[in-house]
Amino acid sequence: MSYQYDEKFDGALASYDKTRAVAELHSLLPDLDILHELEDLRPYECDGLSAYRTTPMMVVLPERVEQVQAILRFAHARSIPIVARGAGTGLSGGALPLEKGILLVMARFNRILDVDVEACTACVQPGVRNLAISQAAAPFGLYYAPDPSSQIACSIGGNVAENAGGVHCLKYGLTVHNIQKLEVLTIEGEQLTFGSDALDSPGFDLLALMTGSEGMLGIVVEVTVKLLVKPRSAKVLLASFDDIGKAGAAVAEIIGAGVIPGGLEMMDNLAIRAAEDFIHAGYPVDAQAILLCELDGAESDVDEDCAMVDALLRKVGATDVRLAGSEAERQRFWAGRKNAFPAVGRISPDYYCMDGTIPRRELPRVLKGIEDLSVEHGLRVANVFHAGDGNMHPLILFDANTPGEMDLAEALGARILELCVAVGGSITGEHGVGREKINQMCAQFSSDELSLFHAVKAAFDPGGLLNPGKNIPTLHRCAEFGSMHVHHGAVPFPELERF
Amino acid sequence: MSYQYDEKFDGALASYDKTRAVAELHSLLPDLDILHELEDLRPYECDGLSAYRTTPMMVVLPERVEQVQAILRFAHARSIPIVARGAGTGLSGGALPLEKGILLVMARFNRILDVDVEACTACVQPGVRNLAISQAAAPFGLYYAPDPSSQIACSIGGNVAENAGGVHCLKYGLTVHNIQKLEVLTIEGEQLTFGSDALDSPGFDLLALMTGSEGMLGIVVEVTVKLLVKPRSAKVLLASFDDIGKAGAAVAEIIGAGVIPGGLEMMDNLAIRAAEDFIHAGYPVDAQAILLCELDGAESDVDEDCAMVDALLRKVGATDVRLAGSEAERQRFWAGRKNAFPAVGRISPDYYCMDGTIPRRELPRVLKGIEDLSVEHGLRVANVFHAGDGNMHPLILFDANTPGEMDLAEALGARILELCVAVGGSITGEHGVGREKINQMCAQFSSDELSLFHAVKAAFDPGGLLNPGKNIPTLHRCAEFGSMHVHHGAVPFPELERF
Repeated sequence: MSYQYDEKFDGALASYDKTRAVAELHSLLPDLDILHELEDLRPYECDGLSAYRTTPMMVVLPERVEQVQAILRFAHARSIPIVARGAGTGLSGGALPLEKGILLVMARFNRILDVDVEACTACVQPGVRNLAISQAAAPFGLYYAPDPSSQIACSIGGNVAENAGGVHCLKYGLTVHNIQKLEVLTIEGEQLTFGSDALDSPGFDLLALMTGSEGMLGIVVEVTVKLLVKPRSAKVLLASFDDIGKAGAAVAEIIGAGVIPGGLEMMDNLAIRAAEDFIHAGYPVDAQAILLCELDGAESDVDEDCAMVDALLRKVGATDVRLAGSEAERQRFWAGRKNAFPAVGRISPDYYCMDGTIPRRELPRVLKGIEDLSVEHGLRVANVFHAGDGNMHPLILFDANTPGEMDLAEALGARILELCVAVGGSITGEHGVGREKINQMCAQFSSDELSLFHAVKAAFDPGGLLNPGKNIPTLHRCAEFGSMHVHHGAVPFPELERF
Repeated sequence: MSYQYDEKFDGALASYDKTRAVAELHSLLPDLDILHELEDLRPYECDGLSAYRTTPMMVVLPERVEQVQAILRFAHARSIPIVARGAGTGLSGGALPLEKGILLVMARFNRILDVDVEACTACVQPGVRNLAISQAAAPFGLYYAPDPSSQIACSIGGNVAENAGGVHCLKYGLTVHNIQKLEVLTIEGEQLTFGSDALDSPGFDLLALMTGSEGMLGIVVEVTVKLLVKPRSAKVLLASFDDIGKAGAAVAEIIGAGVIPGGLEMMDNLAIRAAEDFIHAGYPVDAQAILLCELDGAESDVDEDCAMVDALLRKVGATDVRLAGSEAERQRFWAGRKNAFPAVGRISPDYYCMDGTIPRRELPRVLKGIEDLSVEHGLRVANVFHAGDGNMHPLILFDANTPGEMDLAEALGARILELCVAVGGSITGEHGVGREKINQMCAQFSSDELSLFHAVKAAFDPGGLLNPGKNIPTLHRCAEFGSMHVHHGAVPFPELERF
């Protein structure tokens, strides 16, 4: 599970002499912080997906747009690849450096430039932390809706690069739905504006194209996000089930009734027990599954929805439904869910977090499929997911010190993602493709579709210098490593019949 | 205001002999309906923007995807340009044919393929009418949210091409926010899938890129739309103002209070009087402005919001606030607004409908600016707009039979759009650029940004055969006809100081 950029499959990169590159860049930008000694580079070897590591040629820490422009022009002129990095919390290796490339760390772009209360927007630099935006907006009763679990640390630039989600994205959308304007530098160092201060912008939707493009199209230097007014009331219901299928059915009932919960999360027994043991959230440790359903909005509306959802949950067979009786209890219920990953980390030496999205109706079939694959591979899987939007996070438990187990975990993860594709879903919900899932992209897309991605990439970056080897696999890679393209269930997935 | 595709400025087109093209295509696809006689072509000379007219070389009316693929391959091999057309209700000339091109009419792709109640989606062919989707979903308590005024006639394929909006898009988003998957044919006739049956899809966001691309990137042959559960309750408030600035302030107050109305529409005195005279909606004809504010959701929530909004409206100086007392009255209030365009058509021989979007805060300044420009040009302007999202529809009243007045109307329209850009807004909210606003795109975007649009276009259609001369101006056109690029207010707009 630790491979480097592969020139053979990801396109040949020109190799520029490191000593010369550092000296030239230093002479060009004497004010720029450049790291190039091995001990200084170590902290930048990986992002949140620590299984993949590469030492970059150098790390640069610019503070001003003009410096980034100069760095891009420098790299462009010498064909040196560039990988941008925000806070480095990404889970798919999107910010994994290149041995022969520059790692462009945007962490020092950490200023909130403006909170516009009337327009309900904030203009921020890309290194600003997700949570810091909501904190700056709080005095005005506003907040920034997307809330990835890493929101205390992750940067908005990284959120844009990965189109990050969170527990509230069913109701409030992904990053792409919550940004309004981007200032972007091209590989040539030109500054362009995507989107506008109005709610729509003509021409092609490059704002959406840029969002989730994982640093392959340009470097974001300014983000205008939309802010929402804080809901007047928020309540959370905790429902227990003796069968995970019933929990899945409950999700369909709630959505079908026209209620859009602020959050609708599911955890299976293994995840429940791990979280309860760690956080003491008050979860029912004997339940086969729990659902956390948060309802927010106007006070009376929330009360009405709570009563309706409570009745629906019981109708589909919830063994217990509890309304958080206080704000403290509500926070505790969420703390269990938000800490589910580290909680699972306490019951296994290692775990591998997957991120697949499926049509909601396929939940029972895919859960059964994961169970079968888990038995087949001899590894436990804990399931934690954004049930409302069909975004699953199976956590594969393994021990990297047991020979072969890491490979087994990776193989199981790949099979789970292919299963998601086979039922009409996708290999990622919110963590991105990065380096981790590049081979699974071959299952997701046809070679015609991948060719179009490459053509779009070339429109922005003809030399392929921005984050090569991530997100979009070459056709060569797919031919060599990739799985069969499973066209949204149209081509039979050999294993699917069993599920 | 009636100009043709200009080879000099929009790129040279190969000219293929018409008789030969018709004969060859007929021999290739004997089942295909091909129109080529002048009297048969006349109805296709324009779309909803009737001031622009061109007779196409031929019109084809395919019924099956394989026919469209064959037509595309035929045209591609011979470098014959293709313009796609849905119902032809577009207001910016996006479906204006080319004298030397094929007009591809998708009207016969009119089947609803599936309504998936559990997933809350409908899979439809592109020629299906917008309203027909909601009608098919109605038995299940679902509907398709975007509702352009032309929804009884316009097709979903055209909605995708123009990223159509409607009175409910403040709360429910534009077309791009309400579609989940597209099946698209490239100019080479290859079928690709953008988006997925899950709520997210990896790789570049080609679904969003395709939406609003005005037929320049590919031909949509299938659309999977998201359906929403019908709100349990909807009520509408009608507020009168003796000053249009106060109405603008009310919009800011409502949004700032955290209420997101289902619809929030403003009309000025000229529009009020025209609509009342036509529809007898019960509008106050002496008011300088009215606001229509629809609140929808759970019953109790709607009541709570109505009380809050009523108080806010009075606080900012509404002279009267009326709650529609019955469903019939609610429908009447909306009928006045939805028929505002034809109503204005009754008080003037001709009118020219603009579509600009501005930051909400700029509403008073832009309204004043429009008033000044109206006086300066000696033409009346009626204002009707989606106030909540800052999307204005100034209607310029003129008489095409008065020499010079059409040119004057066009000049005034261009000035209004440039004013929108100068305050940080955009030249279109929901009607698209098409042929009509192609010169204003030069004011909206820098040459670097336009070059990137062209590069993206070339990634899909290197030969420039799909709808050339629309949406994205060539740099040559901008140099020749275009206005100065006004970079989101950064470069001073000479006239803005006056407003």
